[in-house]
Amino acid sequence: MTVTADETAQPAIAAGPHQTPCLVIDVDVAREQYRRIADAFAGAHIHYAVKANPELPLLQALVAAGCRFDVASRAEIDLCLAAGASPGDLSYGHPIKKSEDIAYAYARGVRMFAFDSEGELDKIVRHAPGSSVLCRVLASSKGARWPLSRKFGCVPEMAVDLMKVAALRGLDPAGIAFHVGSQQLYPERWEPSVATAAAIFTELRESGISLRILNAGGGFPVSYRTPVAPISAYAAAIGAAVRRHFGLFTPSLMIEPGRYVAAPAGVLYTQVVLVARKSYDDDEPRWVYLDVGRFGGLAETEEEAIQYELSTVRAGPDGPVILAGPTCDSVDILYQHAPYDLPLDLAAGEVIRILGTGAYTATYSSVGFNGLPPLRTVVR
Amino acid sequence: MTVTADETAQPAIAAGPHQTPCLVIDVDVAREQYRRIADAFAGAHIHYAVKANPELPLLQALVAAGCRFDVASRAEIDLCLAAGASPGDLSYGHPIKKSEDIAYAYARGVRMFAFDSEGELDKIVRHAPGSSVLCRVLASSKGARWPLSRKFGCVPEMAVDLMKVAALRGLDPAGIAFHVGSQQLYPERWEPSVATAAAIFTELRESGISLRILNAGGGFPVSYRTPVAPISAYAAAIGAAVRRHFGLFTPSLMIEPGRYVAAPAGVLYTQVVLVARKSYDDDEPRWVYLDVGRFGGLAETEEEAIQYELSTVRAGPDGPVILAGPTCDSVDILYQHAPYDLPLDLAAGEVIRILGTGAYTATYSSVGFNGLPPLRTVVR
Repeated sequence: MTVTADETAQPAIAAGPHQTPCLVIDVDVAREQYRRIADAFAGAHIHYAVKANPELPLLQALVAAGCRFDVASRAEIDLCLAAGASPGDLSYGHPIKKSEDIAYAYARGVRMFAFDSEGELDKIVRHAPGSSVLCRVLASSKGARWPLSRKFGCVPEMAVDLMKVAALRGLDPAGIAFHVGSQQLYPERWEPSVATAAAIFTELRESGISLRILNAGGGFPVSYRTPVAPISAYAAAIGAAVRRHFGLFTPSLMIEPGRYVAAPAGVLYTQVVLVARKSYDDDEPRWVYLDVGRFGGLAETEEEAIQYELSTVRAGPDGPVILAGPTCDSVDILYQHAPYDLPLDLAAGEVIRILGTGAYTATYSSVGFNGLPPLRTVVR
Repeated sequence: MTVTADETAQPAIAAGPHQTPCLVIDVDVAREQYRRIADAFAGAHIHYAVKANPELPLLQALVAAGCRFDVASRAEIDLCLAAGASPGDLSYGHPIKKSEDIAYAYARGVRMFAFDSEGELDKIVRHAPGSSVLCRVLASSKGARWPLSRKFGCVPEMAVDLMKVAALRGLDPAGIAFHVGSQQLYPERWEPSVATAAAIFTELRESGISLRILNAGGGFPVSYRTPVAPISAYAAAIGAAVRRHFGLFTPSLMIEPGRYVAAPAGVLYTQVVLVARKSYDDDEPRWVYLDVGRFGGLAETEEEAIQYELSTVRAGPDGPVILAGPTCDSVDILYQHAPYDLPLDLAAGEVIRILGTGAYTATYSSVGFNGLPPLRTVVR
């Protein structure tokens, strides 16, 4: 199954003819997903992670719905402002930024920046004086389908020291951020980092520095082929962890959903280019080549991490397939270990819908590897 | 070391100021690499694999030098023709094509097509009647830094059957193709596939079908951090294998170098965005964040497969680093296992040159993940 009807909004997209490959985004679905997560996390500041899908009509709809934004670059700042967002509702959540990009953001009114190192703090002091800062700490991302590395976040004792420096150098030490990994399946995985953050809050309070924001990041999962727990389960687990570890000193909660808002809004229409058998061994599955692959928008199929639900027009007896993309690159294979079945009489030219493809797809696609154009997006 | 002076052409590029990231391509180097491989494989048809780097001035220089082309899409056909190539010098080497793309190629005069399945053969019969066809067989890619999967190529007994069908259906059964994997380090790795091809030639000859072309594919490696054998070693090994297995029935040899021609021609200028320590553990290397990464053109650093040589402006005492790209994506790490050392006093803003980046880089870069623009290319 793809989505649990009572939990995830459903795209109302007719299976109309499309030149494939084409990603169709239903803004209503994204807005509905935003409403769900905002309801579940009542009182929290919801910053949509623009990198998940930066289509302007989607951002406009989210602005109208009261959403805030997490941005990672100049272009994302410009897009949010173009969509009508107030600069005060943007958080520059990428902990690694060029100095000129910090200055660019500051000049446009952005006043909240993440960092996780002394070098980055220096840049913020210089190029965004007086701004609010969130220090990102390392978190365990065990359980995430797309786990984080140690690329972002410092150890807690360094966060304490850096926040003291931030205060001394005229910044507003606003809070602590962490991220438990995208498509994080286990609600309980936030607790260890909430506990770490609470300890940092306490230690700094004893030094006379009062943090106020707990940024619990993103990672909220959507149902691809496997249903996930409802968003309320994540809100409940995080809420309980905050009460347990922060006690009376309740912080303002901030979250940064990207996938949760955008993924269910997208349906990728692709075409079967070829169905082939490469040997006379009946045990070898058919190879099905689509006109979209890892370099055309489905980058998250790397190591088969994200397993999208496929939908064919016709029903009928199915059989196992290996799914590959359209480029000459032999790593451009979507699924060869994950079990996928498609109709036994599937033929070249048929359209397949790849569901839940609204996040981390179109923007990933290559500018032109193999001379293939980037994934086109149509917003409805 | 990066390159062996006597073997690989050297870019004559001044370390001028560039807005980073920027890939600088020196066409003279590509032309020189083409000359080297054409000399080594004297008498063979050299088809440059356009997907490696499709910059028009590079294609123009190769046309002028007498090179032929291996194309993978409509856009690559158009580019080659725009560069002045004759359609008769193009081979549509991608075994998986949409029907309309075959028709498009045929309408522009392309008359050589690869295939590896019955379904694809059907399309070629219908949309490129009378054309020459190369049947691709599975090859072992053991030893390649970027090994191939079973995505392309059928088993030899199927190739025999399909070539018979091709002849019956009015196509010209021209030859057998295989590919031993990109950046293939072992010259002897071509031999098993040459033997397989020879057996197919023999079996078909006994059925009255005379193949004439042996397409030994690409895979010819370049020196990144580790020197590789000279191209003459590959030519010698393949030549010896052909003599051994084909005997008196010498086929016309065809090869499809991409990386060998284009990689040494490119230098990617990138900037250090941040040098950071994330803990007080002196054993944890510094993290160095560049403004180019896996989604901005360095896709071949996936699993650290291709290890580029880095060059800094200043010398000085070095220390270990982990190298990461500029996006928020935690998989956007270039090297954390491969040992890389950079100056101990490396700081944000410094330019680093990434050598050997002329192939499989710019075209891979994402259209705008994280709002970052695709890798810019300057051709000299």
